[in-house]
Amino acid sequence: MEHRLDHTIALLERTPGALDELLRGLPAEWTDANEGGDSWGPREIVAHLAHADRTDWMVRIRHLLDVGETQPFPPFDRLGQREAMQGKSLPEVLEDFTAARAASLDDLRALNLSLADLQRRGTHPTFGSVTLSQLLATWAAHDLTHLHQISRVMAHQYREAVGPWTQFLGVMQCGGHGG
Amino acid sequence: MEHRLDHTIALLERTPGALDELLRGLPAEWTDANEGGDSWGPREIVAHLAHADRTDWMVRIRHLLDVGETQPFPPFDRLGQREAMQGKSLPEVLEDFTAARAASLDDLRALNLSLADLQRRGTHPTFGSVTLSQLLATWAAHDLTHLHQISRVMAHQYREAVGPWTQFLGVMQCGGHGG
Repeated sequence: MEHRLDHTIALLERTPGALDELLRGLPAEWTDANEGGDSWGPREIVAHLAHADRTDWMVRIRHLLDVGETQPFPPFDRLGQREAMQGKSLPEVLEDFTAARAASLDDLRALNLSLADLQRRGTHPTFGSVTLSQLLATWAAHDLTHLHQISRVMAHQYREAVGPWTQFLGVMQCGGHGG
Repeated sequence: MEHRLDHTIALLERTPGALDELLRGLPAEWTDANEGGDSWGPREIVAHLAHADRTDWMVRIRHLLDVGETQPFPPFDRLGQREAMQGKSLPEVLEDFTAARAASLDDLRALNLSLADLQRRGTHPTFGSVTLSQLLATWAAHDLTHLHQISRVMAHQYREAVGPWTQFLGVMQCGGHGG
């Protein structure tokens, strides 16, 4: 489908509640376990979503509206949540994401973006010219890529426990595709 | 991690609420769109989860406890939700899943399964001898494989809208692995 701002907002406003319902109160064996090595577990993924809401999405949107294509977006620290989540419990991280998302969406709505605004362009540091519409659609898809990651990381914890059923469970075959 | 019944129940009891928070009130462009052809959209996936709770999981658990390995599990109709969801709105399908899951978990808890029970065996029609523990772990992982599928199907709707960001979004590279 075409990008629509109201569809993007509808999704963005639901993600914190969905993750809260899925994760709050689960044993740490589900919420803090990862896929090995330096990979992320659900608590870190939620902290990453909160960090991106505080430091990336609205910053890039304002940057695009302010300077257009003349300067690339400021860099985003993809590991910034490691510091931000230090000592935070899962409920604290979930509440932090809920608050960050609510603030972002208040700011987004206050911009009163028009259809013409959505076609304005900025410069991505890696792949160049992009539209505001593409940036907004990516914000929503970024929620989905991390929901996809959380379901995969959690399923990974039961990869031995399911025994021969592993062949029938698509999520167990998912290589991760880097996110 | 090892399978633990309390960890499995903790996950199973959260899935309906998480899907309700994620999907209720979203435009049909998110909830009824699929990945093309005869593939499933989020509303059908939730109906499938409800159908499996009503006709498969507890049926197989009781079958295993009753007859052990002497007779394979009864067949499960993987497309049974098509009939069950006829004319049902997304809220109705979500409520149906919530009710079916609550009833399943009441029944499961009433069995008061012991650690010894979890090692009892049944016969899967395709791959033979399996334990009750594996069957229970698969019930939880089945929720996760369909959460994984829902996030992928929804992201698919924005595959054009995100423009060049598609290369940075893992979920856009996910082939589906059959589920």
